[in-house]
Amino acid sequence: MERVPILKIGDILLVSIQIDMEDQVALQLQEDLADRIVATGCHGVIIDISALDIVDSFVGRTLATIAAISKVLDADTVVVGMRPAVAITLVELGLSLPGIRTALNVELGMELLARERSEDDEEPADEGDDIETPAVTTP
Amino acid sequence: MERVPILKIGDILLVSIQIDMEDQVALQLQEDLADRIVATGCHGVIIDISALDIVDSFVGRTLATIAAISKVLDADTVVVGMRPAVAITLVELGLSLPGIRTALNVELGMELLARERSEDDEEPADEGDDIETPAVTTP
Repeated sequence: MERVPILKIGDILLVSIQIDMEDQVALQLQEDLADRIVATGCHGVIIDISALDIVDSFVGRTLATIAAISKVLDADTVVVGMRPAVAITLVELGLSLPGIRTALNVELGMELLARERSEDDEEPADEGDDIETPAVTTP
Repeated sequence: MERVPILKIGDILLVSIQIDMEDQVALQLQEDLADRIVATGCHGVIIDISALDIVDSFVGRTLATIAAISKVLDADTVVVGMRPAVAITLVELGLSLPGIRTALNVELGMELLARERSEDDEEPADEGDDIETPAVTTP
């Protein structure tokens, strides 16, 4: 059975989908990716679909499932490299890939992940400050 | 016809080979890669073959050709992700991939390229100093 390779680059796992996403391939990819996220502690997943001519509802669902699994494992997912024709067809089919973030290419996807990660890191600290400040001024 | 996507990450072009390297696919990849090197000015090419069960003499030759073309265009090539079984078979077949550098995975490949690039940058400067120094002291 064919397997989609998962490449680790820094804090990110990169998947380039080039083969047809049949049932078994999709399931295997979900499993492999979950294993790799846990094994590596990576916080970001980039899925490149620039080789795909068609993204049907099954592929769309697979991408959404991968994003959901990654999210539970504390990793963000970005789908990159969508061809213009694929985007047009997706919208015409009424599939707008809800819950999936996209970027034009791998580099922009990496930037997006880095930005979100740094915002995530900052937020709890900010909230902590906000809560503390009034507590100090009240008495 | 199927095409192997080429992903740009910083100064490096990344190719993940997952489909059978037939004649046309290999030729197209060589052409696409040469075009992208020229268009982006990238200095490194990483070819991931972790999805390949078999590397025969044709694939070996294709990799060597890609490395040679890249070299002419001032880009270094590293083949990464070779499976242990593939390495064993290659040597048993008498194919040792001459002229192709390898690394275990994409990250190590990137390190190798970065190291070579920085050495290349240093060398001409060092030689320049060596040549200048006697020229200054002679008169």
